Amino acid sequence: MEETINLGLIGFGTIGSGVVATLDKNMHLIEDKVQKKVKLKKIVDLDITTDRGVDVDPEVLSTNVDDILEDDEIDIIIELVGGYQPALNFILKAMENGKHVVTANKALLAKHWQEIIDCALKNHVRICFEASVGGGIPLLAPLNDGLAANNIETVYGIINGTANYILTKMDDAGLDFDVVLKEAQLMGYAEQDPTFDIEGHDTAQKLIILSILGFGVYVSQKNFHVEGITKIKPDDIKFAREELNSVVKLLAIAQVDEDGELEIRVHPTLVPQTHLLASVNDVFNAVYIVGDIVGPVLMYGQGAGMMPTASAVVADCIDIMQDMDSSVAYGPSKSRVKKIKDMSNVESKYYLRITALDKPGVLHSLSGILSDLNISIESVSQRKVDQTDAVPIFMVTHHALEKNVQKAIELIDKLDFVKEETMIIRLL
Amino acid sequence: MEETINLGLIGFGTIGSGVVATLDKNMHLIEDKVQKKVKLKKIVDLDITTDRGVDVDPEVLSTNVDDILEDDEIDIIIELVGGYQPALNFILKAMENGKHVVTANKALLAKHWQEIIDCALKNHVRICFEASVGGGIPLLAPLNDGLAANNIETVYGIINGTANYILTKMDDAGLDFDVVLKEAQLMGYAEQDPTFDIEGHDTAQKLIILSILGFGVYVSQKNFHVEGITKIKPDDIKFAREELNSVVKLLAIAQVDEDGELEIRVHPTLVPQTHLLASVNDVFNAVYIVGDIVGPVLMYGQGAGMMPTASAVVADCIDIMQDMDSSVAYGPSKSRVKKIKDMSNVESKYYLRITALDKPGVLHSLSGILSDLNISIESVSQRKVDQTDAVPIFMVTHHALEKNVQKAIELIDKLDFVKEETMIIRLL
Repeated sequence: MEETINLGLIGFGTIGSGVVATLDKNMHLIEDKVQKKVKLKKIVDLDITTDRGVDVDPEVLSTNVDDILEDDEIDIIIELVGGYQPALNFILKAMENGKHVVTANKALLAKHWQEIIDCALKNHVRICFEASVGGGIPLLAPLNDGLAANNIETVYGIINGTANYILTKMDDAGLDFDVVLKEAQLMGYAEQDPTFDIEGHDTAQKLIILSILGFGVYVSQKNFHVEGITKIKPDDIKFAREELNSVVKLLAIAQVDEDGELEIRVHPTLVPQTHLLASVNDVFNAVYIVGDIVGPVLMYGQGAGMMPTASAVVADCIDIMQDMDSSVAYGPSKSRVKKIKDMSNVESKYYLRITALDKPGVLHSLSGILSDLNISIESVSQRKVDQTDAVPIFMVTHHALEKNVQKAIELIDKLDFVKEETMIIRLL
Repeated sequence: MEETINLGLIGFGTIGSGVVATLDKNMHLIEDKVQKKVKLKKIVDLDITTDRGVDVDPEVLSTNVDDILEDDEIDIIIELVGGYQPALNFILKAMENGKHVVTANKALLAKHWQEIIDCALKNHVRICFEASVGGGIPLLAPLNDGLAANNIETVYGIINGTANYILTKMDDAGLDFDVVLKEAQLMGYAEQDPTFDIEGHDTAQKLIILSILGFGVYVSQKNFHVEGITKIKPDDIKFAREELNSVVKLLAIAQVDEDGELEIRVHPTLVPQTHLLASVNDVFNAVYIVGDIVGPVLMYGQGAGMMPTASAVVADCIDIMQDMDSSVAYGPSKSRVKKIKDMSNVESKYYLRITALDKPGVLHSLSGILSDLNISIESVSQRKVDQTDAVPIFMVTHHALEKNVQKAIELIDKLDFVKEETMIIRLL
């Protein structure tokens, strides 16, 4: 064990501290696996004075990123700065200087994928990013390598812990979204600005990465439907559970059909209670992958958090250390995807919650609009609600076209007896 | 794409045919991933006349294994003969001749692990065996590589599709074990001689492999408790579901505690319905892995069958083709396991089904025996059963020592009012 591999960590925040703690705790195990000495040679952050609760030799700390990027002895950089810049420049510079890169930065990968991969290939270095989707769950390697004999047909799942935590707590306690969000922020499960998680953007970025590895296609976020969970009410969750034996989950969904048309979308979805995803609660994540040879597989675990994410980051480092010259394929190089289906052409069953005055003729008007748009109703249910003159009407449709449902809602919401924006949730 | 990699397949049975079908269907995808030409150069089987429903050039078929083992152009052999011999000799000979090996042969690996790995290391070739545990589920690679930063604390799950199918059907239909077994045999889900699956041996072999990769320890099957599902009755399943909100699953369990003591065992287990494993039905498998950094993760999918298993076999081939010189670690080389816990010292909660005459003093006698052995009872329930003079008494204990429970059962089964062997099932 003569050879030493030097690591450089850029970004000493929560995940960075988890990486330091993991290296500290399990260094013997790691060195044993790679049969080399491993050293965290430098940690760079703007703040090198705050105590992170991990032991670090002060000599290792620096505020100057060039102490990593320009150090010829450093073989692998771990980028945990997050965001677009300066993270992108750090990564590109590191690769140009012949360093391998490990990152958890899904936002950056989802936006600058091609530039980053081209740079890695050109400089004959590896970039690993297992931690960018599904936190600690071994997910991208199974998708890219473990299922390499398959044409991937579908990838769908729960890949945002914050949104899943909020939906779980709303379900458990029957509480309003805002109340649970505040609690989640207090518990550290939601950011102070939670927009990214609750509006589905984080889920969308991860789905972009899954689609690259699964289908060999890069889809920009502006080209698909992304919808968050902020409009979900306890009424929706209660009705789903009691009347539809389903739970509400924020799902990322991507599937390619036999003609090479890709459906890709992020939105709240009603999942039957018998489905494994319905049992994925709190901050846990799980992703279904369906391959043409293997059928369905599922990976489950903690999709975020200091230590789970550090587990994936350090595993990536080990992977590189075991194999610096590996010829890695980042997803299938030829995509079967010929076309991206417009959301308006997606078909689904729909749950509708229409808030209307309780008076004769309401159902007649509603069913007329739906029928004119070729939407047939599977069930209708109206619950009396006290202390309001408008009542929720719950409908479930048979399979219908998204554009027809959107048109129907536009018409319904213009009716004078409809008092709130109609809520729709697609069924899995 | 000049270079050609030649594969040789030994064993043209169900899985072998699946491998041929997979290579046939997805060869473009595979060649694209490895950036080399890939050719299945030779298939060897004693029977080369039966139609397997896949297209094969007759020139590729041979009954002489040396056509693969002694062909210098063949880089990778796929061993799907199964069993101990001649499979072992084929593998060793192939490796001595510088060929990489892909196998699904869990029986062989579980018995001759050290000899096989030593031979691979000595000859600088790789042996891959993802298909040996969990069929098509990417499981061993995530355990060995994806969680490489972790000390693995626990591995447990459902890893035999036949047993899980039988238990699922017994639960769904309330049928007796024998009836469901016959149906499973007709459906092709159980072998004509099902002993290996229903008595837990197959599960045990797979657990041996999981323990090697997870804990770095080889445990021979004779050194741990292995119990099958043949004694489970519909009464047990019904009581579990209705009174204990649990289902009966055949689990493989291995866990190492902080002192380095390993618990390893295979037996039917009561799993709470809220647990993900309770929703793993039919021929599906799922394995929980708990790491000290990542916490719990779970992998789920089809644990057997022609195509799922072929998916894993071909993925292993791709892995080797991408990286012929990879320095692979087969599990942690230093084990944290210092000692294997004797089954008699395992602690668990227990479900007991005691079949006794319904007369005064019975419960008093039973509770006396249990109390003397320091086993405290959490609940007792007796159900009237028609057309028999003996009735089942269901008990659930608090945590108790296995040896005390075994002693109690020995005493209970000697009581003159006890009319059948007492059934125990451990709780998860």
